[in-house]
Amino acid sequence: MEKMKAALLGLGTVGSGVYKLVQKRSDEMVHLIGTELEISKILVHNIKKERPGVDSALLTDNWKEIIEDPEIQIVIEVMGGIEPARTMILEALNAGKNVVTANKDLLAVHGKELLDTAEKNERDLLFEAAVAGGIPIIRPMKQCLAANDITEAIGIVNGTTNYILTKMFEEDMSFEEALAQATELGYAEADPTADVEGLDAGRKMAIMASIAFHSRVVFDDVYTEGITKITAQDVAYAKEFHSVIKLLGVAHNTEDGIEVAVHPMLIDVDHPLASVRDSFNAVFVHGDAVDDAMFYGRGAGEFPTASAVMGDVIDVARNLKYGCTGRISCTCYRDLKIKSFEDVKNRFFLRMQVANEPGVLAQIAKVFGDHKVSIARVVQKKVEASGAELVIGTEKVKERHLKSALDVLKQMDSIHEVSSIIREY
Amino acid sequence: MEKMKAALLGLGTVGSGVYKLVQKRSDEMVHLIGTELEISKILVHNIKKERPGVDSALLTDNWKEIIEDPEIQIVIEVMGGIEPARTMILEALNAGKNVVTANKDLLAVHGKELLDTAEKNERDLLFEAAVAGGIPIIRPMKQCLAANDITEAIGIVNGTTNYILTKMFEEDMSFEEALAQATELGYAEADPTADVEGLDAGRKMAIMASIAFHSRVVFDDVYTEGITKITAQDVAYAKEFHSVIKLLGVAHNTEDGIEVAVHPMLIDVDHPLASVRDSFNAVFVHGDAVDDAMFYGRGAGEFPTASAVMGDVIDVARNLKYGCTGRISCTCYRDLKIKSFEDVKNRFFLRMQVANEPGVLAQIAKVFGDHKVSIARVVQKKVEASGAELVIGTEKVKERHLKSALDVLKQMDSIHEVSSIIREY
Repeated sequence: MEKMKAALLGLGTVGSGVYKLVQKRSDEMVHLIGTELEISKILVHNIKKERPGVDSALLTDNWKEIIEDPEIQIVIEVMGGIEPARTMILEALNAGKNVVTANKDLLAVHGKELLDTAEKNERDLLFEAAVAGGIPIIRPMKQCLAANDITEAIGIVNGTTNYILTKMFEEDMSFEEALAQATELGYAEADPTADVEGLDAGRKMAIMASIAFHSRVVFDDVYTEGITKITAQDVAYAKEFHSVIKLLGVAHNTEDGIEVAVHPMLIDVDHPLASVRDSFNAVFVHGDAVDDAMFYGRGAGEFPTASAVMGDVIDVARNLKYGCTGRISCTCYRDLKIKSFEDVKNRFFLRMQVANEPGVLAQIAKVFGDHKVSIARVVQKKVEASGAELVIGTEKVKERHLKSALDVLKQMDSIHEVSSIIREY
Repeated sequence: MEKMKAALLGLGTVGSGVYKLVQKRSDEMVHLIGTELEISKILVHNIKKERPGVDSALLTDNWKEIIEDPEIQIVIEVMGGIEPARTMILEALNAGKNVVTANKDLLAVHGKELLDTAEKNERDLLFEAAVAGGIPIIRPMKQCLAANDITEAIGIVNGTTNYILTKMFEEDMSFEEALAQATELGYAEADPTADVEGLDAGRKMAIMASIAFHSRVVFDDVYTEGITKITAQDVAYAKEFHSVIKLLGVAHNTEDGIEVAVHPMLIDVDHPLASVRDSFNAVFVHGDAVDDAMFYGRGAGEFPTASAVMGDVIDVARNLKYGCTGRISCTCYRDLKIKSFEDVKNRFFLRMQVANEPGVLAQIAKVFGDHKVSIARVVQKKVEASGAELVIGTEKVKERHLKSALDVLKQMDSIHEVSSIIREY
């Protein structure tokens, strides 16, 4: 039987993992897909660079050698970034090739264009690795949970920030110390912005919400807020309230539109997501039939990501064998509106430094009341002559109502500082 | 476009759930499978029984009406039990129909025969609901994790026993009290033997191990031990050791064979499985590429199980549309041997009542040493004139070595009772 040939675009961390995994599993492949699988070409920037363990004859810096090779049926895009990945994937699909990609940045923006092109050509475009790395989540949602009306998808989908928050909670590190350790261990990149500001998680949530709710959500639709402002005091209060703080991607399908955001949240220690520690990821889904389900594992890394990529490649190969590529394409058959984040309702944990004088609490309560913010609890802490700390928990309130109340409070002489504004799950 | 027609065999809890879910999702189906899905016949014992909400014209007690109906392309078997389910599934596959089943009892014994018949006929035989109910686990293992060498699959795959153990840990109930509550809530059946003795979990582990290790494991290969002997004292000691007790299905692929068993185990509270509470199920998998992954959700119940069944039905319908039924059939391409349970190594937590006199510990230590059992820790508790309680933790020892040591100890006058023998994860 003829070998199944695939090309690899990119040979960074994930690309190397895929290459090694193909070698490691070569004996199994005939059992899995009925034939051998061969990486026959690898597109790289610099073909002269030393790459131990990789057959240098496979390397090329010429895209034409791949796109014009009729024997290559599967293109594995693991370069990342928008261009040239977008153009290459479109060209590959239009040339009748199937594509597997791990590229969340691209899918979160150009997902529709890419999936439409796959569908038009009756080819597969699979991307299990783009959300939560090695964790099976795309296929479970598109297939196993297909009969559900999924109304909620919450995820810890960034390992770097989860590692940082775990260290802050379990080893009393500051954000800066934990970030430094994450960088040292290779969990955080030299420029950690995309991780710590929630952008990486936001891209994954756009893709996941699209699949969960059958309606296109793009990265621009996702409100993002990072973890850089979380302090040791917040950690201490969270513990007091039987909670941890996690950077959560939160997506809901509500009657008046899709809500999708990434921000830190207090979550009860008994919730399954609270026990997701270190750099692990997890996605929690609620469907009307399945009830609650959670998927847990490694959200990044050479081999976990390669595991997801190769699961897709094996699926494409099976589809090729049975002549059914394109059997599951875009599942966004609804056109739901995205709710403005200002109209999303959340519960809030607020911490503020106020003057220690009679009537301050009454003033604050009046401002909240005037702005439709209901208070669930108030605790006064650290009372000193110079001032006191108030810890306030709100009921579910619209983001814009809380914001307008805080805008007024921040102008008041008796409010020295609003130190923390963290949502509560 | 013509409707896709399916027959339902059985209209108990799961069957009713499937029927209702098909009605509830009727508008979505055209988007998911390109056509409408209709339950056109339902096989029941008693067609005269009142069944609210079900069109009585669909009911039949005549299998021939289904097997000989050429329009029925999908048979959904949710009767349970070995016969007549086995014969009907074989006949359906041989007649060119595709089958979706939730029948773990049947698959754990006759899986090979059924899957071989599906393969011979190039038809689908899908059974996502047979392991861990609503939780996606079969498809993730067969597809998403296909590139992994899975060496470990551990599961809390019985909701009844997990509910009982949770109540014993969190509300200090005795086993009997917790079982009574589980029965009252409908979590336990009138005869709870299959649940509390680990038989139900054993069947699921046989199926799961077969898929994880690509080699056939049947129910007879699974050692099973239930939770009826777990006492309040065991619970108290587990807490002292920073652990909980769970009824775990444990499957390992080792160099000298497959190990697969179901028994109660102490597991550290920080392990993700320890936080699986109440009637929830979870399956923890270790693969060489993906590392650790866990799947969590509802392991039983009308709609969670129907969710899994319908995910399979939708997949079959997609395969029918693309002419690729049978694209993923049996994945047991290895023929690994099953290790005798006697040769499996485990760590043990032992609790025994002994005479309170000098030299007893030395006697016990000698017997263990003579039988190749290494002791990791010994704590003497409740020292009274009449006797003392010893709590012993062993290193990893072969089951048969521990058993022979205990056989000797039980004969000794200074050992009044061996009160608990629980494995430790």
